[in-house]
Amino acid sequence: MTERVYLDWNATAPLRPEARAAMLAATEIVGNPSSVHAEGRAAKSALERAREDVASALGAEGADVIFTSGATESAALILQGRDLACAPAEHAAVLAWCRAELEVDRNGKVAVPDPSRAALQLANPETGVIQDLPQGLAVSDLTQAFGKIPFAFNWLGIDAGFVSAHKLGGPRGIGALVVKRGTDVQARLKGGGQEQGRRAGTENLIGIMGFAAAAKAAQNDLDQGIAEKVSGIRDSLMTALESGAEMVTFPGRESRRLPNTLSVLTPGWRGETQVMQMDLAGFAVSAGSACSSGKVRPSNVLTSMGIATEWAGDAIRVSIGPTTDHRDVMRFAEAWLAAYERWRQRNEARATAGRV
Amino acid sequence: MTERVYLDWNATAPLRPEARAAMLAATEIVGNPSSVHAEGRAAKSALERAREDVASALGAEGADVIFTSGATESAALILQGRDLACAPAEHAAVLAWCRAELEVDRNGKVAVPDPSRAALQLANPETGVIQDLPQGLAVSDLTQAFGKIPFAFNWLGIDAGFVSAHKLGGPRGIGALVVKRGTDVQARLKGGGQEQGRRAGTENLIGIMGFAAAAKAAQNDLDQGIAEKVSGIRDSLMTALESGAEMVTFPGRESRRLPNTLSVLTPGWRGETQVMQMDLAGFAVSAGSACSSGKVRPSNVLTSMGIATEWAGDAIRVSIGPTTDHRDVMRFAEAWLAAYERWRQRNEARATAGRV
Repeated sequence: MTERVYLDWNATAPLRPEARAAMLAATEIVGNPSSVHAEGRAAKSALERAREDVASALGAEGADVIFTSGATESAALILQGRDLACAPAEHAAVLAWCRAELEVDRNGKVAVPDPSRAALQLANPETGVIQDLPQGLAVSDLTQAFGKIPFAFNWLGIDAGFVSAHKLGGPRGIGALVVKRGTDVQARLKGGGQEQGRRAGTENLIGIMGFAAAAKAAQNDLDQGIAEKVSGIRDSLMTALESGAEMVTFPGRESRRLPNTLSVLTPGWRGETQVMQMDLAGFAVSAGSACSSGKVRPSNVLTSMGIATEWAGDAIRVSIGPTTDHRDVMRFAEAWLAAYERWRQRNEARATAGRV
Repeated sequence: MTERVYLDWNATAPLRPEARAAMLAATEIVGNPSSVHAEGRAAKSALERAREDVASALGAEGADVIFTSGATESAALILQGRDLACAPAEHAAVLAWCRAELEVDRNGKVAVPDPSRAALQLANPETGVIQDLPQGLAVSDLTQAFGKIPFAFNWLGIDAGFVSAHKLGGPRGIGALVVKRGTDVQARLKGGGQEQGRRAGTENLIGIMGFAAAAKAAQNDLDQGIAEKVSGIRDSLMTALESGAEMVTFPGRESRRLPNTLSVLTPGWRGETQVMQMDLAGFAVSAGSACSSGKVRPSNVLTSMGIATEWAGDAIRVSIGPTTDHRDVMRFAEAWLAAYERWRQRNEARATAGRV
């Protein structure tokens, strides 16, 4: 049996070895960071070193990094009750708290008339489309971009952003909200003074240290030019699919995209069907975001780009990572093209039968 | 240099080896539990096994266990907006959401006139006092009791309870809310269908598997009679302190208490001072709960029991665990009694000087 190939890194990335090692080290730290004794102070100091590492990887030196249980909590913390405008292409955790009224063009780009009253993602999880964030933007979901493309929070010109560790090879269940120093953030979890009074609860030190190590490793990868390597592999896949399947399109391809993400749309061939067929063939890909992939419904990301509702459920997302190699995606292309060919022939037979 | 002795288990317990092993195993699970492919299904299955283990350790088979980032989040999830009555002796994460109007007697026991509109902790973090929960109680904070005394959620006669992993030797940053099956719990984190739609966000699988393993190990310890061993050591400590220090009292000693907890009150000798002196001598203890131990203020737990405000800051909490041995607490007793003696003499000298 051949090994499975994991091509669903935007859902969750495999844990980086650096994160695993940092988490193991963290299991030895006994104290509660809020305790005043030596054990507590050691835990506090490890916590603050991790906070500096995450800030540095985010290019957010001097800003406030607030650790949370992930991007979903960070989104609720900064968005709830503010009634910001956003685009329908945002992640569900953002859509839950904003007015989805901003327009998206056919290339996935969003126009923001009033940045100070809007939220806009830096990169889309399904298509990988990267936005040009307007100066003075209130909030940006940086989750899919962090660790995949170089950027610095301090240079984005935004007031607040948020990230999740597990998208860049850290553990799940840990994330951060980053805000300009001193920004008023009303705590939603109360009862302790942790995180400068903005998020009560004993800190997830093992998760936080894993996050910091993963963020640092991702940053190193970027410094070494990983994005070029990854986008090269992604582009080979796109070329292979395109040359073998005439009906296929790649939503967002005209825009600058994350190097690792490919949205593959085949009108008439359900995304869920493709995901299951590829799963049986040994490949993990997804139809839409993981959090909504249980539900069979057209992608709001694709419909917002003007793709017809009847086709917006016919896409899969292939997302790769730093350790994905060329052979992996070529094996996938082969399997997918074979399935495509079977689908096309069935489709044609059906059309012919219809004509008789 | 002699080894430090950690006597602050109620702030956070050292990670159990079983939890560490489970977390290491969890680092190998690649998928997102919401993904439909084989990797996602494997993650989902590990998640649901862990949920069953936690339910079983809680005696909550058939109830709904909702994983959260800890007891603080669980408290907010079940208490916010309900305006329940509670006692001032509750943890700050509970006090943040309830009316602190229930009376506490001098033994730390709370009277609950209307259980269906009240929250009451099962055990107090500072004194260890165990409450007799009234039938039909709306919510109970089970955090300090879980893993330290045997109980079954299904037999408590309460509608909802919550716990945290790190108090029983699991990792920090993970906890659970447990409710009778089908109870309406309004999600506060939104944007995904996780946890039966009650708590959105990609699941902290490493933390959850560590939690389950720790809960199972704690339950095994209880089955083996660990509580008797622990309370024996705690009682030896109490006897040693009492026989050497005539001014000392132990708030809550007339009540049934957690086997591992000892509140030590010495009127006139600040708890913070004692914590610092003991820290220098190699012992980690605390003055009040960890989350509020940075703040110098009288304990609301002790004042609610009728202890004068001027003395309610003069207590320390010694809390031990399954691996604490008799020698550890005797070394502590010796160091504490020596410090007590120095304090008593200074105190007497001051009193004499005052009289002259």
